[in-house]
Amino acid sequence: MVTRTYSLLGLAEYLGAELVGDPTHEISALATLQKAEANSLSFLANPAYKKYLGSTNAGAVILHPDLQHEFAGNKLVSVKPYVDYARVSALFSSVPTAEAGVHPSAVVGDGCSIANTASVGPNAVIGKGVVLADGVIIGSGSYIGDDSSIGPNTRVAANVSIYHGITIGGGCILHSGCVIGADGFGFAPQDDGWLKIHQLGGVVIGDNVEIGACTCIDRGALDDTWIADGVIIDNHVQIAHNVRIGKNTAIAGHSAIAGSTTIGANCTIAGAVAIVGHISLADKVHVTARSFVSASITEAGSYSSGTPLAPTKDWRKNAARFRQLDSLATRLIKLERE
Amino acid sequence: MVTRTYSLLGLAEYLGAELVGDPTHEISALATLQKAEANSLSFLANPAYKKYLGSTNAGAVILHPDLQHEFAGNKLVSVKPYVDYARVSALFSSVPTAEAGVHPSAVVGDGCSIANTASVGPNAVIGKGVVLADGVIIGSGSYIGDDSSIGPNTRVAANVSIYHGITIGGGCILHSGCVIGADGFGFAPQDDGWLKIHQLGGVVIGDNVEIGACTCIDRGALDDTWIADGVIIDNHVQIAHNVRIGKNTAIAGHSAIAGSTTIGANCTIAGAVAIVGHISLADKVHVTARSFVSASITEAGSYSSGTPLAPTKDWRKNAARFRQLDSLATRLIKLERE
Amino acid sequence: MVTRTYSLLGLAEYLGAELVGDPTHEISALATLQKAEANSLSFLANPAYKKYLGSTNAGAVILHPDLQHEFAGNKLVSVKPYVDYARVSALFSSVPTAEAGVHPSAVVGDGCSIANTASVGPNAVIGKGVVLADGVIIGSGSYIGDDSSIGPNTRVAANVSIYHGITIGGGCILHSGCVIGADGFGFAPQDDGWLKIHQLGGVVIGDNVEIGACTCIDRGALDDTWIADGVIIDNHVQIAHNVRIGKNTAIAGHSAIAGSTTIGANCTIAGAVAIVGHISLADKVHVTARSFVSASITEAGSYSSGTPLAPTKDWRKNAARFRQLDSLATRLIKLERE
Repeated sequence: MVTRTYSLLGLAEYLGAELVGDPTHEISALATLQKAEANSLSFLANPAYKKYLGSTNAGAVILHPDLQHEFAGNKLVSVKPYVDYARVSALFSSVPTAEAGVHPSAVVGDGCSIANTASVGPNAVIGKGVVLADGVIIGSGSYIGDDSSIGPNTRVAANVSIYHGITIGGGCILHSGCVIGADGFGFAPQDDGWLKIHQLGGVVIGDNVEIGACTCIDRGALDDTWIADGVIIDNHVQIAHNVRIGKNTAIAGHSAIAGSTTIGANCTIAGAVAIVGHISLADKVHVTARSFVSASITEAGSYSSGTPLAPTKDWRKNAARFRQLDSLATRLIKLERE
Repeated sequence: MVTRTYSLLGLAEYLGAELVGDPTHEISALATLQKAEANSLSFLANPAYKKYLGSTNAGAVILHPDLQHEFAGNKLVSVKPYVDYARVSALFSSVPTAEAGVHPSAVVGDGCSIANTASVGPNAVIGKGVVLADGVIIGSGSYIGDDSSIGPNTRVAANVSIYHGITIGGGCILHSGCVIGADGFGFAPQDDGWLKIHQLGGVVIGDNVEIGACTCIDRGALDDTWIADGVIIDNHVQIAHNVRIGKNTAIAGHSAIAGSTTIGANCTIAGAVAIVGHISLADKVHVTARSFVSASITEAGSYSSGTPLAPTKDWRKNAARFRQLDSLATRLIKLERE
Repeated sequence: MVTRTYSLLGLAEYLGAELVGDPTHEISALATLQKAEANSLSFLANPAYKKYLGSTNAGAVILHPDLQHEFAGNKLVSVKPYVDYARVSALFSSVPTAEAGVHPSAVVGDGCSIANTASVGPNAVIGKGVVLADGVIIGSGSYIGDDSSIGPNTRVAANVSIYHGITIGGGCILHSGCVIGADGFGFAPQDDGWLKIHQLGGVVIGDNVEIGACTCIDRGALDDTWIADGVIIDNHVQIAHNVRIGKNTAIAGHSAIAGSTTIGANCTIAGAVAIVGHISLADKVHVTARSFVSASITEAGSYSSGTPLAPTKDWRKNAARFRQLDSLATRLIKLERE
């Protein structure tokens, strides 16, 4: 573990924030207000945590100008304390560096173009005709299929599977266990079972995309599945064949998007959402957690479905009545008419 | 990337379809009506796409006899255009071929029986006593546990995990990240925590089964978990211990089936469905997306649960009323009596 | 496959159960009442299976004193037949043993401390400064990141990914495809997209924890994600950054817990449950399958949400009325007032 130390003056210059306090104070960690110690920088972005300002042991706090009078210690005054926390987090990243070069235990196919600054980890397998740009990192045990290409500085964690003919941009992060380019779920029904539709498309992923652990993005049936620049996708997300996801859209964990659906730009799909196939969502649509989207959404806004949690005993009674809802409504209308 | 070219005459003979047009026209791709070019074969299976027939640049189109007069270009006339599209897709598959033999970086245990025509990819690990039949392909980094056997021409993609004592038929496809034979979730409650029930059963998978990326099929507690011939399973599906799935049933992405449940033959379980344990579903049951199945289904047919999506503001009001449903119903009945 | 044989006397002594019958009868398998043969031990824990006692061919049955008169054959009489079944299951475990030592194809980084009795399987990759205690088993193709440590007798199956700086206790089982310590899903919104918040925390997992196949436990943003001793987690579970899970809690397959949520001890979260972030669940909370938890639960008990399954035709009518629920309720109240 490397310890990195920064003076408050250095951090203020890095952030372009106003420093109030001791410019020589040394910071070697980033911490919550509750856990911070004298060597820690902390931050206040959510007003709910203001209550911890009085008791924090933080060596300095990033906070908004409106709140700076609430804290007597060293501070970095910023109009965007949460963004500045994110910027400082990069300084303290604990991700191990990867040595450039191909590890002797890795297997690399013919006709690859691997930049000198790229790193291919132990027991990774690279197919034929693969292109790895400058600064690409391929983690241990990962597989990159034939004719796939990965843009500069993209980091592929351990045990990732990327099939053949996949295009991934630069500055991406792909977490362990994710699978890019498996066959879309396409079959023609016949009298005696299913006939496989071979999936001839690929997957095209833009720049600065993050893909969570165990997330799957299937290859297209004929055209490509397409993920725009800046999209962020959490763990266990299923993206079926020929889905298209617009720029900077965020998709939280355990969500699933069925085939040929198009999601607009700047959408936020919360966790455990399911979206059916062959529909479109406009830009700036927000879907709340555990919702089910069964039809296109043409206007920006927030959408939801589901029923509220209750003690099982109460829920059981109400759920049973759900089966009678149409009857109840009809009878109410009849009463109203009488 | 290999380019394959077929004359329309050759394709007509392959499909047994009637050719109307130029038999020497060369086809080297399969494409949607919208994206097809002169070298592409396209197809019309869904009447909603009839509107593209007028403007397509396709070199030829597969279509139904009833629609053949709607298209002036080359055509392959077929009573099953979607099935014929699937059949042609096999001709254009881009899946790389695998060389027969065991890659030098693979590790193979004692007592295995590996056919000469089987392929074991780089950094794969094969346990002891494993049987790989003719034409089996084991992808890079995959693991096959002791005493497991895999039938002819089954393709196991990269980074698949198959535990010990698993039986998989022929003609199957297992996608990356899938896990076959992990322990079922069985524990006996004790005063001071859970006592593991060791899972002594296996998994038996029939012929021509497709298993999606990151799908898990657990081993049985005492008997085997069982998947019949022709079953197709999408990504991220959870199949718990002692589940039995009948012939040609299809299960879409992100569905989960709890322990000891039996699903009939020719069922279609749409995406994101959850099915509780210890129940049975009859043959030819269709469950719509995101439904929750909490009791046995004894008759074929289509079943659903859930509530419709709405703007969050409206949904909130209706969802709050769900908590009062039983009370509302009781009061309505009282009013009716008055 | 090894066959192990035990006399009934030996099993009675192992369990501390009363033996009624032939002490020399030999048992070499554990089976359900329906499938048991003369060499099998079976058990009766669920009264629903009492009907099989008359026809079973089991060589002996574990059953409760209250039921012992219902079975004429050899029996092991126990007040905890289900726990005793679990105890016997350990005797018949089919999990292959692992040889101590590091397989020559594995890659081990500098500065590791690997116990002599630990086993590192083929093509596994161990980073720098990793600690593997006595009896640890690392399966084929698994990856353990820098500075992580694993306690005694923990078994890591094939193709598991454990990132850097992760602490795992002793006696745990981690199934294939699980991912421990991927980045939590943390990003600061900016006008032109998302800024990554580097995830500086780790994951701390206690003793005797079981983690299912393809389950993901993300590393914390600043503090650690934390799993207490004795927690059992099924397949496909998502545990987001900074979640805390109390002792002996069980989480069934396909459930998801969003960031910074705290789950108490001795809870049971059934399958396909989704729990939002930044809330707390008390000890001994039971959440039924497919429920959605959107607010803290402060009292022990059973909780549910959702609507019941119905034929799609009926469901459609009732679901449409859900959109009118608030209106229907308002109108009912008006009628009551009149």
